Amino acid sequence: MTVGVAGLGIIGGSFAKSIKACTSHKVLGWNRTRSTLEYAIDVGAVDAELTEENVSQCDIIIAALPPAALVNWVKSFAPFFRRGTVFVDACGVKRAVTQDIEPISIEYGFIYVGGHPMAGKEVSGFSVSSDTLFRGASMILTTADGRESFTVSALKPFFYSLGFGRVTVTTPEEHDRMIAYTSQLCHVASNAFIKSPAAQKHTGFSAGSFRDLTRVAKLDENLWTELFFLNADNLADELELYIGHLNEYLTALRSGNEDSMRDLLREGREMKEESRK
Amino acid sequence: MTVGVAGLGIIGGSFAKSIKACTSHKVLGWNRTRSTLEYAIDVGAVDAELTEENVSQCDIIIAALPPAALVNWVKSFAPFFRRGTVFVDACGVKRAVTQDIEPISIEYGFIYVGGHPMAGKEVSGFSVSSDTLFRGASMILTTADGRESFTVSALKPFFYSLGFGRVTVTTPEEHDRMIAYTSQLCHVASNAFIKSPAAQKHTGFSAGSFRDLTRVAKLDENLWTELFFLNADNLADELELYIGHLNEYLTALRSGNEDSMRDLLREGREMKEESRK
Repeated sequence: MTVGVAGLGIIGGSFAKSIKACTSHKVLGWNRTRSTLEYAIDVGAVDAELTEENVSQCDIIIAALPPAALVNWVKSFAPFFRRGTVFVDACGVKRAVTQDIEPISIEYGFIYVGGHPMAGKEVSGFSVSSDTLFRGASMILTTADGRESFTVSALKPFFYSLGFGRVTVTTPEEHDRMIAYTSQLCHVASNAFIKSPAAQKHTGFSAGSFRDLTRVAKLDENLWTELFFLNADNLADELELYIGHLNEYLTALRSGNEDSMRDLLREGREMKEESRK
Repeated sequence: MTVGVAGLGIIGGSFAKSIKACTSHKVLGWNRTRSTLEYAIDVGAVDAELTEENVSQCDIIIAALPPAALVNWVKSFAPFFRRGTVFVDACGVKRAVTQDIEPISIEYGFIYVGGHPMAGKEVSGFSVSSDTLFRGASMILTTADGRESFTVSALKPFFYSLGFGRVTVTTPEEHDRMIAYTSQLCHVASNAFIKSPAAQKHTGFSAGSFRDLTRVAKLDENLWTELFFLNADNLADELELYIGHLNEYLTALRSGNEDSMRDLLREGREMKEESRK
């Protein structure tokens, strides 16, 4: 097969590298910054540039671009897609992106499947991409009804071949509800956590729990602001719930109620244990 | 030297194992549950039981017990300490413990140094203790004025010999202020985070950020309730600050203010970068 990869940041770069490392498919790559594309070709992650002229060779096209940039890219390349090409994006939100891409897919006759690889790092760019980033991770694929279409069934072996440990099929709506919590709220919680003045003098007073809580505080504020506001309803609900829970601990502390604190902590411990089953 | 280790949980067990693995000191051990002590002797982490009869052989005694249990242990064993013995506890709070232990140390003529090894796991007990737990970690030692006493200077090479990468000397007050944030607030934030209903169906939708945020949600509610309420003033202040920051993100989301969100995220990203210097 020939696979197109648009956007060679950490995610797109990792797709390109994984395809070259794990399969015998040809990779055509596109990137806004030309020097990154040339570097990707030099290191063998990409076989050749993906252009309007050769995009019709692609059986699958993966686009790992932020939502607005993604829609622009599709608008300019879709007229040149082969009919029936499978197009998968890698955006962190799925309702808004699906709404934008679906009509274009109907217009130009390509098959759109929403995608979101559950892998990443607190750093970005092609230089930190890796052919092992997806190892064991979950690849989320969305369809309008959340059921496995023929195309999705056919795509699963492809993603497994890149090292993914699981393919999760769901609706854009359920994806956005879940991701508001499992990913977006983590980033808000971590980014807010680092704002205590104590954070600036933590050295010698911190260990694993501090390191874990603050790891993703380092984020790309432009990308995450865009993602947050395409899922603002779900994220605000989750954040409000979190603040509500935190206030229960604060009340227990301020009122000196040790029994209440013990109950709150026990409940959290039990929910953590339960969540692993 | 002969080193006494009272309390053979994850911390005390790791002290015993590290001393045996890294030095040629003799280890006398005490544990409330006798079978754990016998097991520790069987696996060579402890040379013999620490008793009222032989505690006077100890040059250094390390006690890794929860605050209330610690004070009880010291009250019953201190009458048998050799005069001038150095006693270091491993409690997660230092003001309250110092207040309790100081008068006993004066009464029986031993040298008390507050201690807090910045290492741990989300699991507990001798079975998860390890001679590598402290590798590269910070050992906090407290003195009344936060300055390095003769005893503290003499203790530093001992802790370095066990694998610690740093010894931080401070006051009990500064320790408690810092730890309220770097450790206690992490546990509250993580324990509250897991309480969204979405946590129970995260599989397939989660990755590293979720794993990190919720790791220490699994905690011993009895131990942490005790520790929290011996530092309730500092912890409540940090928690209130955290909730205040989270509310800023919520306001930005609910009011649709993308610029404000971007500013909040940028500020957090910059503070994270700054905190690493």
